[in-house]
Amino acid sequence: MARVLVLHGPNLNLLGVREPGIYGTTTLAEIDRQLAERGRELGLEVVTFQSNHEGALIDRIHAARTEVDAIILNPGALTHYSYALRDALAAVGLPAVEVHLSNIHAREPFRQHSVTAPACRGVIAGFGARSYLLALEAVRAILQEGKD
Amino acid sequence: MARVLVLHGPNLNLLGVREPGIYGTTTLAEIDRQLAERGRELGLEVVTFQSNHEGALIDRIHAARTEVDAIILNPGALTHYSYALRDALAAVGLPAVEVHLSNIHAREPFRQHSVTAPACRGVIAGFGARSYLLALEAVRAILQEGKD
Amino acid sequence: MARVLVLHGPNLNLLGVREPGIYGTTTLAEIDRQLAERGRELGLEVVTFQSNHEGALIDRIHAARTEVDAIILNPGALTHYSYALRDALAAVGLPAVEVHLSNIHAREPFRQHSVTAPACRGVIAGFGARSYLLALEAVRAILQEGKD
Amino acid sequence: MARVLVLHGPNLNLLGVREPGIYGTTTLAEIDRQLAERGRELGLEVVTFQSNHEGALIDRIHAARTEVDAIILNPGALTHYSYALRDALAAVGLPAVEVHLSNIHAREPFRQHSVTAPACRGVIAGFGARSYLLALEAVRAILQEGKD
Amino acid sequence: MARVLVLHGPNLNLLGVREPGIYGTTTLAEIDRQLAERGRELGLEVVTFQSNHEGALIDRIHAARTEVDAIILNPGALTHYSYALRDALAAVGLPAVEVHLSNIHAREPFRQHSVTAPACRGVIAGFGARSYLLALEAVRAILQEGKD
Amino acid sequence: MARVLVLHGPNLNLLGVREPGIYGTTTLAEIDRQLAERGRELGLEVVTFQSNHEGALIDRIHAARTEVDAIILNPGALTHYSYALRDALAAVGLPAVEVHLSNIHAREPFRQHSVTAPACRGVIAGFGARSYLLALEAVRAILQEGKD
Amino acid sequence: MARVLVLHGPNLNLLGVREPGIYGTTTLAEIDRQLAERGRELGLEVVTFQSNHEGALIDRIHAARTEVDAIILNPGALTHYSYALRDALAAVGLPAVEVHLSNIHAREPFRQHSVTAPACRGVIAGFGARSYLLALEAVRAILQEGKD
Amino acid sequence: MARVLVLHGPNLNLLGVREPGIYGTTTLAEIDRQLAERGRELGLEVVTFQSNHEGALIDRIHAARTEVDAIILNPGALTHYSYALRDALAAVGLPAVEVHLSNIHAREPFRQHSVTAPACRGVIAGFGARSYLLALEAVRAILQEGKD
Amino acid sequence: MARVLVLHGPNLNLLGVREPGIYGTTTLAEIDRQLAERGRELGLEVVTFQSNHEGALIDRIHAARTEVDAIILNPGALTHYSYALRDALAAVGLPAVEVHLSNIHAREPFRQHSVTAPACRGVIAGFGARSYLLALEAVRAILQEGKD
Amino acid sequence: MARVLVLHGPNLNLLGVREPGIYGTTTLAEIDRQLAERGRELGLEVVTFQSNHEGALIDRIHAARTEVDAIILNPGALTHYSYALRDALAAVGLPAVEVHLSNIHAREPFRQHSVTAPACRGVIAGFGARSYLLALEAVRAILQEGKD
Amino acid sequence: MARVLVLHGPNLNLLGVREPGIYGTTTLAEIDRQLAERGRELGLEVVTFQSNHEGALIDRIHAARTEVDAIILNPGALTHYSYALRDALAAVGLPAVEVHLSNIHAREPFRQHSVTAPACRGVIAGFGARSYLLALEAVRAILQEGKD
Amino acid sequence: MARVLVLHGPNLNLLGVREPGIYGTTTLAEIDRQLAERGRELGLEVVTFQSNHEGALIDRIHAARTEVDAIILNPGALTHYSYALRDALAAVGLPAVEVHLSNIHAREPFRQHSVTAPACRGVIAGFGARSYLLALEAVRAILQEGKD
Repeated sequence: MARVLVLHGPNLNLLGVREPGIYGTTTLAEIDRQLAERGRELGLEVVTFQSNHEGALIDRIHAARTEVDAIILNPGALTHYSYALRDALAAVGLPAVEVHLSNIHAREPFRQHSVTAPACRGVIAGFGARSYLLALEAVRAILQEGKD
Repeated sequence: MARVLVLHGPNLNLLGVREPGIYGTTTLAEIDRQLAERGRELGLEVVTFQSNHEGALIDRIHAARTEVDAIILNPGALTHYSYALRDALAAVGLPAVEVHLSNIHAREPFRQHSVTAPACRGVIAGFGARSYLLALEAVRAILQEGKD
Repeated sequence: MARVLVLHGPNLNLLGVREPGIYGTTTLAEIDRQLAERGRELGLEVVTFQSNHEGALIDRIHAARTEVDAIILNPGALTHYSYALRDALAAVGLPAVEVHLSNIHAREPFRQHSVTAPACRGVIAGFGARSYLLALEAVRAILQEGKD
Repeated sequence: MARVLVLHGPNLNLLGVREPGIYGTTTLAEIDRQLAERGRELGLEVVTFQSNHEGALIDRIHAARTEVDAIILNPGALTHYSYALRDALAAVGLPAVEVHLSNIHAREPFRQHSVTAPACRGVIAGFGARSYLLALEAVRAILQEGKD
Repeated sequence: MARVLVLHGPNLNLLGVREPGIYGTTTLAEIDRQLAERGRELGLEVVTFQSNHEGALIDRIHAARTEVDAIILNPGALTHYSYALRDALAAVGLPAVEVHLSNIHAREPFRQHSVTAPACRGVIAGFGARSYLLALEAVRAILQEGKD
Repeated sequence: MARVLVLHGPNLNLLGVREPGIYGTTTLAEIDRQLAERGRELGLEVVTFQSNHEGALIDRIHAARTEVDAIILNPGALTHYSYALRDALAAVGLPAVEVHLSNIHAREPFRQHSVTAPACRGVIAGFGARSYLLALEAVRAILQEGKD
Repeated sequence: MARVLVLHGPNLNLLGVREPGIYGTTTLAEIDRQLAERGRELGLEVVTFQSNHEGALIDRIHAARTEVDAIILNPGALTHYSYALRDALAAVGLPAVEVHLSNIHAREPFRQHSVTAPACRGVIAGFGARSYLLALEAVRAILQEGKD
Repeated sequence: MARVLVLHGPNLNLLGVREPGIYGTTTLAEIDRQLAERGRELGLEVVTFQSNHEGALIDRIHAARTEVDAIILNPGALTHYSYALRDALAAVGLPAVEVHLSNIHAREPFRQHSVTAPACRGVIAGFGARSYLLALEAVRAILQEGKD
Repeated sequence: MARVLVLHGPNLNLLGVREPGIYGTTTLAEIDRQLAERGRELGLEVVTFQSNHEGALIDRIHAARTEVDAIILNPGALTHYSYALRDALAAVGLPAVEVHLSNIHAREPFRQHSVTAPACRGVIAGFGARSYLLALEAVRAILQEGKD
Repeated sequence: MARVLVLHGPNLNLLGVREPGIYGTTTLAEIDRQLAERGRELGLEVVTFQSNHEGALIDRIHAARTEVDAIILNPGALTHYSYALRDALAAVGLPAVEVHLSNIHAREPFRQHSVTAPACRGVIAGFGARSYLLALEAVRAILQEGKD
Repeated sequence: MARVLVLHGPNLNLLGVREPGIYGTTTLAEIDRQLAERGRELGLEVVTFQSNHEGALIDRIHAARTEVDAIILNPGALTHYSYALRDALAAVGLPAVEVHLSNIHAREPFRQHSVTAPACRGVIAGFGARSYLLALEAVRAILQEGKD
Repeated sequence: MARVLVLHGPNLNLLGVREPGIYGTTTLAEIDRQLAERGRELGLEVVTFQSNHEGALIDRIHAARTEVDAIILNPGALTHYSYALRDALAAVGLPAVEVHLSNIHAREPFRQHSVTAPACRGVIAGFGARSYLLALEAVRAILQEGKD
């Protein structure tokens, strides 16, 4: 059974609390629960990890290199400046999908550019918690590519 | 039964033929077939339309105002300059999802900015033909929001 | 009796429907009626044309070269990128007035620059449907310049 | 009877003298006369004021707050840098129309951007002295909006 | 006998009429005649097409994929923003030569950058109608490359 | 007893009237009264001056050179372009504190850069009328530096 | 008694040691002592925290959400790139004041822009250790706003 | 005998006092005396005027139109933003020479661009008070051009 | 018999050796031979000159002023910064054609802008050695313009 | 015996594993071994530290202030945005050398600018693991400067 | 008797021939003659040198280090990119004056910035051949500074 | 025995004389002597060449193609604009190392970007004369790569 690491970046632990007008009212625990459930349906074991520390996220990505088959990543605000996170993704070479709760293209100019996305297969943005679930499906499809 | 208009912009009619290294080998007809099938599973009637004419795409969006419940749009290269397309989406006020076959964030600088995305709910990019199928699921979720 | 071609660009056919907070509730048909009426008062025959196709607008401008005495143009979002429309205006050499319903200088940065205006005599922006009527007066004055 | 303040910014006192190739041969006194006459026809009392001093223009706008119903403003070169003038217009909250004799969009790059226009209802540019007369009509229409 | 499609973009139908100081007095019909004649000398069958519609030009390029051996393209003002045209050229994969009547490097800044040229083999600009004839020779040389 | 000149730039005379959502409802007279009172508590004689004229503010700064010990300055919109004001501050060499009612870093991009601040000791922004009072304390501390 | 969290960002632990020409000779312990003392005078309990880790600062801000009434933050060099810190401040929704020892507007260009300030009520910069004390007063005033 | 107006812009009244490291120790009165003396030698009557008010400088330039034969102008910091001053020079059409005490090309980036110089015949910068005297000679040569 | 000077800029002496993937395998001597031969066919005497020295190229252009009828120039990398070369071309006033072996519009951004082209009649780029031969034809046509 | 701290930034722990085409196949342990060995030859005690945490690197630099004589730093991707790291280096005042395995000047534009280098004595980039060894020699020379 | 080296950069040898509308009809020999004559009046021996080679100009500046007392330099188009020339001036440490025949501030944008001027005492531009003569006077004054 | 060409660009002949605060007091002859000596120790024959002429440096690089095994280059100020030098290095295909005496990343903005470095293996900057010696070691290592 394939394993997927879902990474939540800075401030995502406050989900459901933080600016609900932009980010919705679902909590991160609820998203993690939905991911586990949907993962089971799709035949994927889901491991989740949240940190406000860029370094901890990078450490976790490194550890994932030999543990999981794919990464789903919501880098939070690190999306816009963490070249180190981008390099970590490129370094481990796992298929990765970038996820955003809000439609970053419709927000402040600095949020419209992602420095981490070039190290990912694709990006899903704007569907709230469902962005993660769609990413899970995308990951399953990517993992099946080689098998068909 | 909800109806979804899927719009394919310039050059997408050549899909499967055009630069398969970037865009894959699936044809547009095949994508349209998959969309119809997946739509049926999701309880959505899918209408598709392709044009290389910005104006024809805008006309089609206008006509959709009273005919469909949501729009999925792959604007092709118009993504990067067609403010008219953006205004058309804003004008009809239907929920829209922007789709890209390739990960535009990992390509030439001019492809990393979307002028149409601000008029959409969200963006899905980088999963080839599957980007459309994921968008279909996103649309179903959006249409159910109000009903729950 | 002098003839004036009034061109309405992309999405203006939705006037009165589209984002009334920005563009008002008057329909395009009503504007065309007001233009015809005001034209009669000013001794001007008014011909109107709307299209969402950049090419159709250019074709119409070309045809106007030997048919009308002046052009009033609301290029819609094409204002911001259609160098082809600008060249069309320059090519036919007729006096032209650019019109905008909203005050483009008070909106998003991309809307504050017009690439078509350099091929026009002047610009009137921000007075809703009345922008067109003011342009009609401006045109009449321009046409009388040579006669006085 | 409604009152309109017409403000002429720096160097407009030289009108008719200064670079007639760009600005025409009509003098400012003549424009003021035409404004008074056209005002009478439209049922508007027109007050005019010219100064080469940014501060004097701001003082006059402040004084206008309780004296007039609308402002027509040709800021001259202050158009391109006087954020103080812009704030003055925003501060008094009167409807204002920005006017330019020449088509600023067809001149040097620095003249194509207006920092004062965002505090106005609209802009009329390129019709010589007639730009003011058109603005007078625009003002009348704005003042009647609330009354209809 | 090899076939070459010559595409003329927006406003080129007005050639000989439009701004002769910049574009010369030769008409498009005359250019097409010269191309046909010179083509016969070079052993090339020349097909020509003009449109003011970006979409029609793209459609024609697509159709050319199995019909012709090379494309000569004067994109007119689309040169400066039509990424869709660029993608069309890249999609069909035919050798293409971009042509301009005027020396675009000596004109307004926006005309000095071509977004379509990266999808072409080369560019010839500044020689009036002769730019097309030189392109025809360039095309013949390109087509013979593989045969020598 | 040390003397402090407090300068209020363009449009600050309208305080309490002008856009209260941004600038609050306290009038300038009330601020001046609070400054005088707080000055007395701190052992500082406060002189205040408001002008909408850049030149008058510069004249006042020059006169201050031999009259006061420090300057508190709210340059209003001049903050963003008056290099002359900046040079005036540098020329007299008095310790100066720049003050803003609103948090300029959270407003329009042009308001986020101060050209006058480099000629000041520090900047206090965003606390409404209290920004001035805090500046008064900062000034007292600066004046005591040399004495301890 | 209201509680205030004072956060010191990267390198501030070296205060008094690091580049005294720019940052002065007062140590951080001394500043913390002054803050505690001044807090007592103002009826505020002051909690201080220093870290060189962006993530630790974010964690501390999150924890503060239910523990303190306001935040004073000197983000150090994170001021210029940590969008994650900005989001943390916005997420907890507490009133915050940004503090800088030096006048950042008079230093290198990269130090003149703050990405964290838009999530704060105001900014105080340039008064050395006193910047913190002034911020404490500003905070007290903010906390009393609602009570008067 | 030809007459020359010498204009000194903002802060130049403080010459000899202000930042002598940059601007030297000569006072403005001394410069005016040298200009009068050197003018007599060159057969030029020199009129001088200093103001910290942009508007007063413009008024003086306008008045000069029928009174003097040439203008020497040191716009001070207005050099870098006063498009109104530039327009005033262009409007009166007199030959003008721009003068700077310091070498503006070797100072801060914002001082390296002059918006007023395009309306002048030439610029002399970097020679302290002597810049004015050299400008006087330049003016005499310009005035003799037509006479030889 | 008309004479044409063909100038080869820096590094073109290594042609055939240098990066054949970009510049092809034809040597400069071979190109010069082809130019001489094709020149004879066209009735043009071809003189060629290569130098890696900007100054030597300028000297040669100056000498050409009274010796030849036209110039063909491949400035190599000087294309992108040698304003001195551009001025030399403008100074001698001979018709000039700029030539590039590769399609500079499809390479690094710095290679997409030519500072020398504005002083030329036209540009031919992307056809390898044939770019020169096409330029020779263009030159002949230019030289015949006046004669027809 | 002088001591040198060698810091390895984010992702360098994956050396030998991560993108060997860019970064080579030598592991970090091997580099540390080479550094120790080469250090012994040069009479330098080498201490090494790797972290993916910006904060941990800063902490280590601070600790080094009284422990080591010089720093060699490969900031990894932090090179391009960590102003905090730069400030840490400036704060401790030790001679530092920046090292990069790859030639950052030949990679993506964002990698061509270093924000940390201004706080270092020099930079060595592009020689793989040997960059570190060269830096060690540079450090020994710097440490001997004062002694000669 | 003090010696002054006058350097003329690229294309200045064509003076009187090249674009007389911009540069006038005086030849370089005539300017050199005037410089010698005026030099004699001022007690300065004038040595002149012209080259189209940046390297030759630098060599000449180096040689001047021990031979002359000051340099007058018209760098021609090298003004806008020759950082090597700038470094040469800074290296020899002689007082230098930059001269331009035309008013570079009123020409193309690229001509409005000088990279060589920061290594000079001052700049004189726009007075044709007289710019050099004025520079000669400026030089004499600079050389007398130390002697008074 | 491998041979290495060491190239010194413009103004480096003045080393030891020119701005010793920035570039040190060692002369170029002394550096060349050290290079020869260190070369002997490393088994490398060192050939040195200095020129102030870009063209002469390019000529020398071309000649080196068949004479030497590697190049060490200090391009001086050419670093920042000589694309021709860059092309020369790329053309000959020899391994090259770029050297700077000062730390260019800590100087003026224009010195922080190298246009020549992308054609080199690596860059060593900031260690004075020792930068060259370190480059010599780097070169030896590069030359041994293939042999191990």
